[in-house]
Amino acid sequence: MRILILGGDGYLGWPTAMYLSRRGHEVTVVDNFAKRRWEKELSVLPLLPVPLLGDRVKAWKKATGLTIGKVEADLCDFALVKGVLHDFEPHAIIHYGEQPSAPFSMMDCHRAVVTQTNNITGTLNVLWALREQAPDCHLVKLGTMGEYGTPNIDIEEGFIEIEHNGRRDVLPYPKQPGSFYHLSKVHDSNNILFACRVWKLRSTDLHQGVVYGIETDETRLGPELITSFHYDHIFGTALNRFCAQAAAGIPLTVYGAGKQKRGFLNIRDTLRCVELSVLNPPQAGEYRVFNQFTETFTILELASLVKVQSGKLGLKTEIQHLANPRVEAAEHYYNARHQKLLDLGLKPHLLSEVLIESMLASVRENAHLIRQETILPRVQWGHAARAARAAAGAHESTLLPEPAMLPGRAHPAEG
Amino acid sequence: MRILILGGDGYLGWPTAMYLSRRGHEVTVVDNFAKRRWEKELSVLPLLPVPLLGDRVKAWKKATGLTIGKVEADLCDFALVKGVLHDFEPHAIIHYGEQPSAPFSMMDCHRAVVTQTNNITGTLNVLWALREQAPDCHLVKLGTMGEYGTPNIDIEEGFIEIEHNGRRDVLPYPKQPGSFYHLSKVHDSNNILFACRVWKLRSTDLHQGVVYGIETDETRLGPELITSFHYDHIFGTALNRFCAQAAAGIPLTVYGAGKQKRGFLNIRDTLRCVELSVLNPPQAGEYRVFNQFTETFTILELASLVKVQSGKLGLKTEIQHLANPRVEAAEHYYNARHQKLLDLGLKPHLLSEVLIESMLASVRENAHLIRQETILPRVQWGHAARAARAAAGAHESTLLPEPAMLPGRAHPAEG
Repeated sequence: MRILILGGDGYLGWPTAMYLSRRGHEVTVVDNFAKRRWEKELSVLPLLPVPLLGDRVKAWKKATGLTIGKVEADLCDFALVKGVLHDFEPHAIIHYGEQPSAPFSMMDCHRAVVTQTNNITGTLNVLWALREQAPDCHLVKLGTMGEYGTPNIDIEEGFIEIEHNGRRDVLPYPKQPGSFYHLSKVHDSNNILFACRVWKLRSTDLHQGVVYGIETDETRLGPELITSFHYDHIFGTALNRFCAQAAAGIPLTVYGAGKQKRGFLNIRDTLRCVELSVLNPPQAGEYRVFNQFTETFTILELASLVKVQSGKLGLKTEIQHLANPRVEAAEHYYNARHQKLLDLGLKPHLLSEVLIESMLASVRENAHLIRQETILPRVQWGHAARAARAAAGAHESTLLPEPAMLPGRAHPAEG
Repeated sequence: MRILILGGDGYLGWPTAMYLSRRGHEVTVVDNFAKRRWEKELSVLPLLPVPLLGDRVKAWKKATGLTIGKVEADLCDFALVKGVLHDFEPHAIIHYGEQPSAPFSMMDCHRAVVTQTNNITGTLNVLWALREQAPDCHLVKLGTMGEYGTPNIDIEEGFIEIEHNGRRDVLPYPKQPGSFYHLSKVHDSNNILFACRVWKLRSTDLHQGVVYGIETDETRLGPELITSFHYDHIFGTALNRFCAQAAAGIPLTVYGAGKQKRGFLNIRDTLRCVELSVLNPPQAGEYRVFNQFTETFTILELASLVKVQSGKLGLKTEIQHLANPRVEAAEHYYNARHQKLLDLGLKPHLLSEVLIESMLASVRENAHLIRQETILPRVQWGHAARAARAAAGAHESTLLPEPAMLPGRAHPAEG
């Protein structure tokens, strides 16, 4: 199949490109390198330097003899998007090309607006370009489990049958996203559903959990084929942060009591889920949602796993509870269905002790590169920030001036 | 109270400004005149020329001795929005300042993107500015009943209690908007709900039905105080179109069988609903939705009412059915709650025969100004457009080249 990967220079985009290339697909990556610019702007670079896309593609050719195409294009430029679809005539588009960070979107008004306008405009342009150039092409869009929030009822896959006053209907599942980033994904989902309905496009909206891991069969083929490892407060996720903290010999920082439950999956499963979606396209006019995760953990459970495993490597690790910078339920019901991808044949890689051990070992090798000052949360969601800013005489940004000012930092370590 | 009216130069904004000014409030209007530019760009001017805002404000002063302030500002400029809130210190903001047309948003990719980015950015800027400058100010935001679409269950006011697998929760009502414009309002609603939750802002989201009428007690105070009357295919609504067609002696054009049901309200009731919202603000942190309409009609019922009334004025009128340019259910269940504003004291002006008669008489006086070529629908929602464009060798736009190409135009007149 001819497959376009939007955002193909990113953490998941590049491994997906290699994975599908190796399985015989004709893959072209589209990226405008916005993420690399944001990383520099905010001084939150990945642990190891990530080769430029041109070098990645060359290294891939050298390692496998296979060609991955590349196009530099901003999805916010409709003429470019249309041109790419016209030239490439894809059978499937895998769309990772969005601003991916919740804290980024909560920093200030400018970044909230950039997140939403960038993500929405890119996806609208893709939809209109599909309508014009490739109405039968299958759009595989990366959404997030965070679109649902934490309702007090079971989370279904995209739609729910509701009985109300004696009548019934199957309606889009009500969503309660927790940041302007998560909201942008909900906006996208609503736009895509509509486009499928009125233009008979076909799309799979992958509501993905938190991805962990940096190794795939393809990244292991050479040092220039690695993907990015983010442990910082903007682009990092919890498990990565814990591994970096353990490797650096500093406390694992859990926000609040750590009883927030979330869905997680291994990066290898992301690739397989995307492949399963591509190989089993929906009907024309069909918009479907797959909940894409394999296991549910609380944040404290994750931290405890890392603590135990790092102990086995001889690292002394403690868990420290910080005041939660986000506004989210401290404790909540969480039961989310994730059956459709299993039905298509997904065999999950579960978060075994072995995986954490190998991640820990790999981070530990490069522990000298960890920039500890980028780890602690500095973006505040709610009123705490208003109070802190008022005290500091600062304006506008929700970025606290110093990590040292974190309200929770002096809390006694627990765990 | 000090009240800011965003989009205060518009069809509803200006009558609202006069209404609240006359009731003793300190009113300032903010507008960037984008709507006037779009009207010119698309050659769809209101029936009578609408005086410029500066002249409106002067005429108001002359007629009543009262002052309405005015600020030219684009809501997409955060610094300006923040400055206005800082200078004015409003108790309430009434936010009409958005691109208001569904057909406009469906014309082409550019206008879909403009609609969504303009509306979302403006509202995000207002939310962040409130957070910074006026967290206790009450945001009264104009949404639309079209956010809900036409589900097969009763429509509630913003939220619905769902029982599912033995558990219960009250969740945002699932929405199925029918155009990129309606989607932009859903995106806004989701953003505002979130901002109220994390920043403890307070907001009333008025999910308004289709407004008709051009006369209020204030517009009658002088010819320079009129509001705009749109009967065209971009900014016009059904009842206005029917009145213009009856006055011009051409058939009333109903899309499809005309069995689509919608909620409607008189412009006088819009003003009263906004006033009731302002006088009864929500708690800090509260986001509430009022469904703002007073009656439900099918489109064919509206056309039939106009036909009967125009007959009494000696006009010969027939009803013609066109193929529906929109993708929407031809026939559907529709039962939407609209109790909260009645509970606050709204006394509806119902669509009596008298109202239609007076609207018809007023349009008839200016029938020579009606530009018939702007009336028939030329923006197609769905596949019909693709077929038509393919036949015409055209690209990209959903705007049909000629009204004469309308698929439904040759249909036999019915009704």
